[in-house]
Amino acid sequence: MRSGLHEECGVFGILGSDKASWDTYLGLYALQHRGQESAGIASFDGKKIHTYKRLGLVGDVFGDPDIFDLLPGKIAIGHNRYSTTGATTITNAQPLTVTFKEGWMSAAHNGNLINASSLRKGMESDGSIFSTTSDSEVVLHLIAKSQKATFEEKIVDALSKVKGAYSLLFLYDGKLYAIRDPHGIRPLSLGRKGDIWAVASESCAFDILEIEYQRTVMPGEFLVLEEGKQPSSSFPFPKPKHYAGCVFEYIYFSRPDSFVFGKAVDLVRRKMGRQLAREAPVHDADAVIAVPDSSNTAALGYANILKKPFELGLIRNHYIGRTFIKPVQGERDFGARIKYNAVPGILKNKKIVVVDDSIVRGTTSRKLIRMIRDAGAKEIHFRVASPPIISSCFYGVDTPRREKLIASQKSIEQIKEYLEVDSLAYLSLKGMQGIEELREIGLCMACFNGIYPVE
Amino acid sequence: MRSGLHEECGVFGILGSDKASWDTYLGLYALQHRGQESAGIASFDGKKIHTYKRLGLVGDVFGDPDIFDLLPGKIAIGHNRYSTTGATTITNAQPLTVTFKEGWMSAAHNGNLINASSLRKGMESDGSIFSTTSDSEVVLHLIAKSQKATFEEKIVDALSKVKGAYSLLFLYDGKLYAIRDPHGIRPLSLGRKGDIWAVASESCAFDILEIEYQRTVMPGEFLVLEEGKQPSSSFPFPKPKHYAGCVFEYIYFSRPDSFVFGKAVDLVRRKMGRQLAREAPVHDADAVIAVPDSSNTAALGYANILKKPFELGLIRNHYIGRTFIKPVQGERDFGARIKYNAVPGILKNKKIVVVDDSIVRGTTSRKLIRMIRDAGAKEIHFRVASPPIISSCFYGVDTPRREKLIASQKSIEQIKEYLEVDSLAYLSLKGMQGIEELREIGLCMACFNGIYPVE
Amino acid sequence: MRSGLHEECGVFGILGSDKASWDTYLGLYALQHRGQESAGIASFDGKKIHTYKRLGLVGDVFGDPDIFDLLPGKIAIGHNRYSTTGATTITNAQPLTVTFKEGWMSAAHNGNLINASSLRKGMESDGSIFSTTSDSEVVLHLIAKSQKATFEEKIVDALSKVKGAYSLLFLYDGKLYAIRDPHGIRPLSLGRKGDIWAVASESCAFDILEIEYQRTVMPGEFLVLEEGKQPSSSFPFPKPKHYAGCVFEYIYFSRPDSFVFGKAVDLVRRKMGRQLAREAPVHDADAVIAVPDSSNTAALGYANILKKPFELGLIRNHYIGRTFIKPVQGERDFGARIKYNAVPGILKNKKIVVVDDSIVRGTTSRKLIRMIRDAGAKEIHFRVASPPIISSCFYGVDTPRREKLIASQKSIEQIKEYLEVDSLAYLSLKGMQGIEELREIGLCMACFNGIYPVE
Amino acid sequence: MRSGLHEECGVFGILGSDKASWDTYLGLYALQHRGQESAGIASFDGKKIHTYKRLGLVGDVFGDPDIFDLLPGKIAIGHNRYSTTGATTITNAQPLTVTFKEGWMSAAHNGNLINASSLRKGMESDGSIFSTTSDSEVVLHLIAKSQKATFEEKIVDALSKVKGAYSLLFLYDGKLYAIRDPHGIRPLSLGRKGDIWAVASESCAFDILEIEYQRTVMPGEFLVLEEGKQPSSSFPFPKPKHYAGCVFEYIYFSRPDSFVFGKAVDLVRRKMGRQLAREAPVHDADAVIAVPDSSNTAALGYANILKKPFELGLIRNHYIGRTFIKPVQGERDFGARIKYNAVPGILKNKKIVVVDDSIVRGTTSRKLIRMIRDAGAKEIHFRVASPPIISSCFYGVDTPRREKLIASQKSIEQIKEYLEVDSLAYLSLKGMQGIEELREIGLCMACFNGIYPVE
Repeated sequence: MRSGLHEECGVFGILGSDKASWDTYLGLYALQHRGQESAGIASFDGKKIHTYKRLGLVGDVFGDPDIFDLLPGKIAIGHNRYSTTGATTITNAQPLTVTFKEGWMSAAHNGNLINASSLRKGMESDGSIFSTTSDSEVVLHLIAKSQKATFEEKIVDALSKVKGAYSLLFLYDGKLYAIRDPHGIRPLSLGRKGDIWAVASESCAFDILEIEYQRTVMPGEFLVLEEGKQPSSSFPFPKPKHYAGCVFEYIYFSRPDSFVFGKAVDLVRRKMGRQLAREAPVHDADAVIAVPDSSNTAALGYANILKKPFELGLIRNHYIGRTFIKPVQGERDFGARIKYNAVPGILKNKKIVVVDDSIVRGTTSRKLIRMIRDAGAKEIHFRVASPPIISSCFYGVDTPRREKLIASQKSIEQIKEYLEVDSLAYLSLKGMQGIEELREIGLCMACFNGIYPVE
Repeated sequence: MRSGLHEECGVFGILGSDKASWDTYLGLYALQHRGQESAGIASFDGKKIHTYKRLGLVGDVFGDPDIFDLLPGKIAIGHNRYSTTGATTITNAQPLTVTFKEGWMSAAHNGNLINASSLRKGMESDGSIFSTTSDSEVVLHLIAKSQKATFEEKIVDALSKVKGAYSLLFLYDGKLYAIRDPHGIRPLSLGRKGDIWAVASESCAFDILEIEYQRTVMPGEFLVLEEGKQPSSSFPFPKPKHYAGCVFEYIYFSRPDSFVFGKAVDLVRRKMGRQLAREAPVHDADAVIAVPDSSNTAALGYANILKKPFELGLIRNHYIGRTFIKPVQGERDFGARIKYNAVPGILKNKKIVVVDDSIVRGTTSRKLIRMIRDAGAKEIHFRVASPPIISSCFYGVDTPRREKLIASQKSIEQIKEYLEVDSLAYLSLKGMQGIEELREIGLCMACFNGIYPVE
Repeated sequence: MRSGLHEECGVFGILGSDKASWDTYLGLYALQHRGQESAGIASFDGKKIHTYKRLGLVGDVFGDPDIFDLLPGKIAIGHNRYSTTGATTITNAQPLTVTFKEGWMSAAHNGNLINASSLRKGMESDGSIFSTTSDSEVVLHLIAKSQKATFEEKIVDALSKVKGAYSLLFLYDGKLYAIRDPHGIRPLSLGRKGDIWAVASESCAFDILEIEYQRTVMPGEFLVLEEGKQPSSSFPFPKPKHYAGCVFEYIYFSRPDSFVFGKAVDLVRRKMGRQLAREAPVHDADAVIAVPDSSNTAALGYANILKKPFELGLIRNHYIGRTFIKPVQGERDFGARIKYNAVPGILKNKKIVVVDDSIVRGTTSRKLIRMIRDAGAKEIHFRVASPPIISSCFYGVDTPRREKLIASQKSIEQIKEYLEVDSLAYLSLKGMQGIEELREIGLCMACFNGIYPVE
Repeated sequence: MRSGLHEECGVFGILGSDKASWDTYLGLYALQHRGQESAGIASFDGKKIHTYKRLGLVGDVFGDPDIFDLLPGKIAIGHNRYSTTGATTITNAQPLTVTFKEGWMSAAHNGNLINASSLRKGMESDGSIFSTTSDSEVVLHLIAKSQKATFEEKIVDALSKVKGAYSLLFLYDGKLYAIRDPHGIRPLSLGRKGDIWAVASESCAFDILEIEYQRTVMPGEFLVLEEGKQPSSSFPFPKPKHYAGCVFEYIYFSRPDSFVFGKAVDLVRRKMGRQLAREAPVHDADAVIAVPDSSNTAALGYANILKKPFELGLIRNHYIGRTFIKPVQGERDFGARIKYNAVPGILKNKKIVVVDDSIVRGTTSRKLIRMIRDAGAKEIHFRVASPPIISSCFYGVDTPRREKLIASQKSIEQIKEYLEVDSLAYLSLKGMQGIEELREIGLCMACFNGIYPVE
């Protein structure tokens, strides 16, 4: 359960489908967990790019079937966005579609450029204007300004100037371009069904369309998709010393049914729970419970190693509705109680292991634990299936400032006291790094160890 | 996972709270799973009854905090409704508020009267008109026509004429009246926090308000709640031979964190899974998976007995949104894929036990199984944590007609073939009846055995 | 310009049209000026009555063409409602559809029953319940209770018990019933196009459908319309000494392009202006202006007699929008300025006659006059094309209580001072009564002379 | 009555008001007739510019009072937009707010740049991107690229490169900048109330705020408004040979209660009607009617000269509602009948002069005339209070292509036959040019004579 840690978006692109915008809609629907603020689709009809985006959930934004008539063409890209700022606004919704000297282009971006601000300042000095505060607009400016001949070269030229994390999709003149940053920080996968090719942040977007998952797009790989052709692949930038896929994709962001960075999320997440059990067992526990739904897999792994019963001790309410109003004051633990309820029949007089995927600020964990205690748990042993978060992220994860990260301010013992649990343990960094699948990839663990892949 | 079996409503009432309508809103929110078509609240301000009801989810219907200013008073009742008919209409939304010779009264009803239609015809013959097609209006007519002196007596007089299932709440002149039918078909629980008293279909509605669950309201029990007094309890009708609580509350309708008929849903549901494991084990299964979320508990019980790993092999998408549009044609298994996705990492080349809570028509189960098969499962053993449904319900559960119930038309072997599974087993009726908690209550199992408690 | 005087509704019914509900929608649209709070349509498909009603303007309530699929059948009635109470609520929206011993019936009512409350109390004593506070529900109860054999007789039986104003439409079993009260207080007209028959509060509802206006329905006349037959007409009640059509239909309520009570509104309204000019001329006026749009016709008549130029000295803003928010405090004359603006080019240094159709409270007139003064008018002579309103209405017009009627509290001289005009004159009651068309009808002028047609 | 001729927007700006965004809302409300597609406001709070814009009417876009909390500051600009393209989209809504090297700026534009496309192409060649298709974005680019030192100089530098029509407002760092193009094609007026200064397309926007109209902003005049200072005025561009205010502001676009180009619209429009009467009288006409509301003033002028009665022979329905659905097929003259109804009492057996402000395609006029004929008019003499439109507009008026302009394709005699009228006459160009007020201004009459002020 997270409050204070958010991924910023999901991207999806498809080529060769007779109902490209409809397929993109379903792809975005499957990626809804990556961003709930706005949703948008851009399609190319052979002449121009059509764009439709609104604030809201995918299912609501595209709730009128007539919208798809406004998005014709066999090629489309889409984007779900999570707001990182308090202000909810349509301005930064994506895809971002503009005209430039060669006509129309559109971009959908997952990630965060760390030099966007200085690039922007530089271009403003040269007389450019910016309509949004999104990094993607910086990239579009760079492409438009590139002196290179082809759009493909312009993209490479533009991205050679940026630093940071990106999985970027572009739509231009009948082709779909997809590229991951050289460190491979944000994920992107490739799928196929006959002559239809698709790219998506996670492979679960393919499943809903019965598109077959092919493989991960590689760090630094640049794919050009064109109808009637095999995808062309190239690696325009030098290979960095280390790859740096965001480990939080495995811990929390991605759906367990997805492949991300080429590995099954479910499997990795399970192994984290198992390793945690090995490192910090609670041998005489009566039950292991998860904070649903994000911690279910790790909790299962934990319970499995210790041969303890996995139980559904917390029930999550899924019917929150769009305009649910929360009390502004006074009601203790209210936020947690709106989302969860503890099950006394499971918890009463029991020694409980609660497995959560991570702790950010600790405020919601504390409320949850109080609910579990109120439901009668005799002992609560809190286990976190990832290491303590001690550093903020600069690559697209909306972490709070360092001072708000409980693990950067308190010792484990102090956190244990703050949470009012009987014991507390995190998965060790070493334990996490030891997971075979993760070793094969090359991951960024800056939030745990402060080592940033991009200077 | 159900398509074709629905409970019709949730009711909530509260007395003595300074923010009675707000509390009712939260109570209804926790009962949202019992009905998503409409939500409504009626409150009494000392003089008259105010009513607000609309089509939609609780959080959306009451999305504007100003609404609560329109619902003043320290006593309120509320209602969530599930539409049993195709037509979505506000006419039948509850609470139903009317004036009669003594002033204002309002009712919220969970259940179904089997003689409503004949009572209605009789009253129409005498010149009455009906504005809705809801059973509750029949009851309000009967109360208004009663010659008895007090409102309490009028209720008893009215209900002495009806047959069927009801958990009914009434608001009248500063008192909250709550009554269950003598057979106790639909549930109702009593809660308390200091001077505040509340009644609700399930106890989870108390938890969100930190109201303490007291006990079930008994079959046939008539509670009168009045500010500053202890609830008065009476049993105005003769005790029937058998109680007949709806067993489907334990199988599917209620949230696992609730107490229903005085028993923890979670516990009973678990025992069903355990008994199923004893009756129909799959000894060499690689994993047990549930159809989330309703079958999770039973699947856990099943896995637990057989010491097999419980796995999250199906992922449920919870972001469907209000206006999600579905394809009208052609896409195979689409409905299932919108709600669920199978996790290949868990299923591939595995011998899988799938536990579902029940099968109604079988159409969705078939789609789900196909998804699991497509994800690579080697063998699929389908286990149903309740007996075959062979009869329709007349007490408020929206079952399809008998001919649509797959188990009334096909043998187990035929169902197995239809579902394309490697083996199929249901929990035996006897096995279910043997669960200790259920033996203590007295339940209606007409859907399984055709024996109806009310003639 | 009126604030504080409102007609309560418009009714429309049609029979024999293949798109009866669509036609009713357009008819209601043309009658929108008679009520803007809610709109509704009920149609009969040969078996049952379908009803759709919502708060809002006709064009918004029926803004989705799919709605008409929910309203099948060749016969329909519709209703626009103006809220007479502050609370905006759907409960009292019409048509009111109920079931009774003979099946489905629906009613749409324009008018006000003066003994509704006592009838209601009587029926409540006998055990009836009421779901709305509308008079129509009383009538439906009376019909349902009637022992007469046919629906036609039941209507007559029911209406024999009520006193007051009504133009009532009923839908029952393939027939459309229309009846006006014996005094003929509220209007109703009959139209025809081939085999299609229609009734409407005003004939402008026929024009939009190219239905030909036939004649007024007579006071006390009871029409039964049935497909394939000529309308049957009867007069079930004794003829009263005097007819009493509401004179305000000619002064303000009806559209000038309508026939009402068999006379062209435009013509009568014009004659009021002319008579006013004869009675209270301003011989050296520079211009005559109206308070648009309701006073335009009378002002033209006034200007015409005096051979003075009619000018557009006030401009009305028609784009108010549904949710226009008004300042809650402080801004002087704001309400008037939102609706009107004065034209300095016409008014500056001029001696102006302002013709208004009536004065209720006088507050808005005062604000308007101040605007005209601010725009530079040298002299303002206020002329009112109807007599002083001294009594409240009990037949469906939402007049304020007597104490709020400026003419019941102040002398003409005092009103002149309050309004800050250079002179003030009303049309005399005698002058109004002298208009030939009005003499032919028999009108209620109780608001001017306190003589009520129904005791 | 116009279908096919539209002005594109209204602009409003205010400085020095404690409720600048609220005032802008009311100003836009008064300018609603200039554009109904979208409305927007940008305000400057001392640090940054806040922008809120949506599709819809002003009253609906700003229907929630909380919006004004999102628009703080004492200085604001606003914009109403009329869509010139079929596609309704938020992309081009204004004000357009961007960041550039000096920080935030925002613009609101009424007009049309004829070299926008080539400027845009040039900037695209240099690597610029465009997020909208609006001319304003071109201007903002030019400002951002300007090497001049001050914002004021940058504006002048930028506008020195553009050709066409503009009344432009800019918000930048605490100042409000307002400038009209040198030919003065689109209007702009200056108002004041104490220390508050305002600019608006028409003076009616001042009246609603009780701001006093000061004067027209002159062609080519550049006003800089700053709190606590008098407006600074300059004329940065050479004076052209002729001024060229759009004559259609007087014929149709502006509200009659406004001052535009320093003259009262009402007065000019009246004189057009008078001149038309002198040129093309119908001596034995029974009545003169207008096509409401836009032709009322001209019709009055016409009737006045001929001493014929002005009558309200057509009634306009003002309650159309946001989502009014029109029949897609088949119903003859439907569009006209939804908006207008003819009054038989006035028209029957009469010789009628119908005065309209202009004819574009002629299709709606034809429908209206048929309605008047159906209402019984014996003779219909159509008089148009402006000359035949023979050329399209390039300065911001949405005229159809030349081939669709009936007067460019048919002779007067042919138009008369097409419209099925007994006689037809237009105001002569010479007659219009002879109106004293118009002679004083310098106007563009390109739509009548094909002489364009800007090459």
